[in-house]
Amino acid sequence: MRLLDIIEELASNAVKVDKFIEKILLDKEPQILYEAASHLIFSGGKRLRPYLTVKACEAVGGKTIDALPYAAALEILHVFTLIHDDIMDNDPIRRGVPTVHMKWDIPVAICSGDLLFAKVFEIMTEYAPETITPEKINLCIQKTAYGTIQICEGQVRDVMFPNSEDVDEQEYILMVGGKTAALFKTCAEVGGIIGGGSPEQIEILGQFAWDAGIAFQLIDDYLGATANEEELGKPLYSDLREGKKTLILIDAQNKASKEQKMIIDRIIGNENAEKKEIEEAIEALKSIGSIEHTLNKSLNYVEKAKTTLRNLPESKTVNDLMDLVDYFVKRSY
Amino acid sequence: MRLLDIIEELASNAVKVDKFIEKILLDKEPQILYEAASHLIFSGGKRLRPYLTVKACEAVGGKTIDALPYAAALEILHVFTLIHDDIMDNDPIRRGVPTVHMKWDIPVAICSGDLLFAKVFEIMTEYAPETITPEKINLCIQKTAYGTIQICEGQVRDVMFPNSEDVDEQEYILMVGGKTAALFKTCAEVGGIIGGGSPEQIEILGQFAWDAGIAFQLIDDYLGATANEEELGKPLYSDLREGKKTLILIDAQNKASKEQKMIIDRIIGNENAEKKEIEEAIEALKSIGSIEHTLNKSLNYVEKAKTTLRNLPESKTVNDLMDLVDYFVKRSY
Repeated sequence: MRLLDIIEELASNAVKVDKFIEKILLDKEPQILYEAASHLIFSGGKRLRPYLTVKACEAVGGKTIDALPYAAALEILHVFTLIHDDIMDNDPIRRGVPTVHMKWDIPVAICSGDLLFAKVFEIMTEYAPETITPEKINLCIQKTAYGTIQICEGQVRDVMFPNSEDVDEQEYILMVGGKTAALFKTCAEVGGIIGGGSPEQIEILGQFAWDAGIAFQLIDDYLGATANEEELGKPLYSDLREGKKTLILIDAQNKASKEQKMIIDRIIGNENAEKKEIEEAIEALKSIGSIEHTLNKSLNYVEKAKTTLRNLPESKTVNDLMDLVDYFVKRSY
Repeated sequence: MRLLDIIEELASNAVKVDKFIEKILLDKEPQILYEAASHLIFSGGKRLRPYLTVKACEAVGGKTIDALPYAAALEILHVFTLIHDDIMDNDPIRRGVPTVHMKWDIPVAICSGDLLFAKVFEIMTEYAPETITPEKINLCIQKTAYGTIQICEGQVRDVMFPNSEDVDEQEYILMVGGKTAALFKTCAEVGGIIGGGSPEQIEILGQFAWDAGIAFQLIDDYLGATANEEELGKPLYSDLREGKKTLILIDAQNKASKEQKMIIDRIIGNENAEKKEIEEAIEALKSIGSIEHTLNKSLNYVEKAKTTLRNLPESKTVNDLMDLVDYFVKRSY
């Protein structure tokens, strides 16, 4: 019931956010640039980040409509990072469609990402709600800059470690923090600022979203080893085939027997691994306990996030945010 | 005499700007990211854009020191675009050193560009001079976003036309406007805003800088066919060898005889063209008049820029700005 509610809430919020994004990006010149920049945005996505922004605004007493342009801007920021990440990771498919550098080319993909990033600040200065002061606009812009800096730092940390053996669980969480949790945090903080939250409330929202972001990424790792192709929107077991660092593999490094390690190692980063070999590796990861460990770790972050959020006054919106983090986990069953 | 003055002025301003940039970028973690992001910045560059920012601030009565952080931010923005452009254009050398994607790799180069872009807004919100209101900070951020959007649009227009035959002079100027003049304009506007200029003064400064930017790029085209390797900081005739669109080639398309066209075409985009062949092509371009046309066109923009600037009250700073555009041209003799 609650899972259906949250999916409906997300969809209804997404419609409003998308209407604004369309106004900013559709039918603009040069056509190829704006088409490339819009491509992933209108190819799916759950609009989690705008939802978080809007709900954070409401949670401290603000109005939905005030948060919408900034919520849209932060989704645009997210898609900018996706376009550039796909080039860096050489990913051919995202949201079930070709990535921007595959459909066009690397120059157009770099440029359309840059354009989207610039658009974030155009929106924040042009479409600020009348209810907030210029000081608060600046604070939103600053939080957005900080978030993006952390994303870049996380991305390079990721690129720096060529494989899972070189990184321990703590370093991995730091990296994931940059790559995913930082933007979640920015969204919640920006929403809280627009909603007129106190500095304490904004901090609570930020901490909540950070932990929720870590949980979200760890669940993604978990899904990469358990979900089917349709659920993933990308080729089955591509995390493993591409040798992507996940908590599952990092955990397995320390706990696997020699034999298990051999079974796992022969498929990691092996684009030609056979289905049977991959299934054997998944079985090994299961019996080591790394898949369950990743799920549990994620559930811990969910609990931490919810505990933090209980410091805000109870309301329907706060419950919606609790449901949101539950949804992160429930989508995995 | 005046040329020496302006070089000295540029250098003295650069020292102050660089001190600020060092504070922002040196000795930060992850090391590889910040090293890559700093690489081109500390490998040269005349700091024209920060100079323009500082002088625009002074021209309307503002203090140098107030403009320095934003001047530094705009140089950082410039270097972000250089790093990404070098990937897009596949350029191996810039400012006499390997480009970021050559020294590191494409992922690190994309990411360090993104980092620098985010840093621009961190600086603008964290280091705003105390003399300006939050509204004006917002306006500076907005101008910066607009400028960057135009850069992206110009870059894609450039990529869209595979060669000079597909683009006429007017389209070329539009493209150059995005790629070079837009940021010059942003710098002058931001300087004007910080300096407390009236909306009219800010517009004058913006228009001046736009025309100066076009002049600057056209002179660059001219130098690509006339300067030596040391002056260029990149391999001799690389514009021609790479088939780069320049006003010289665009002009030659319409005016060349069949024979001249043949001589020119055999070296355009031909990395293996022999020195003798290139020299013959340069001779052809000279006798067509395209090299002189490019210089003259550039001088027209210089005059237009200076005429606009005469609408500001006369001062030493306004003269410095006049000297700056003269310097663009004089560096070509």
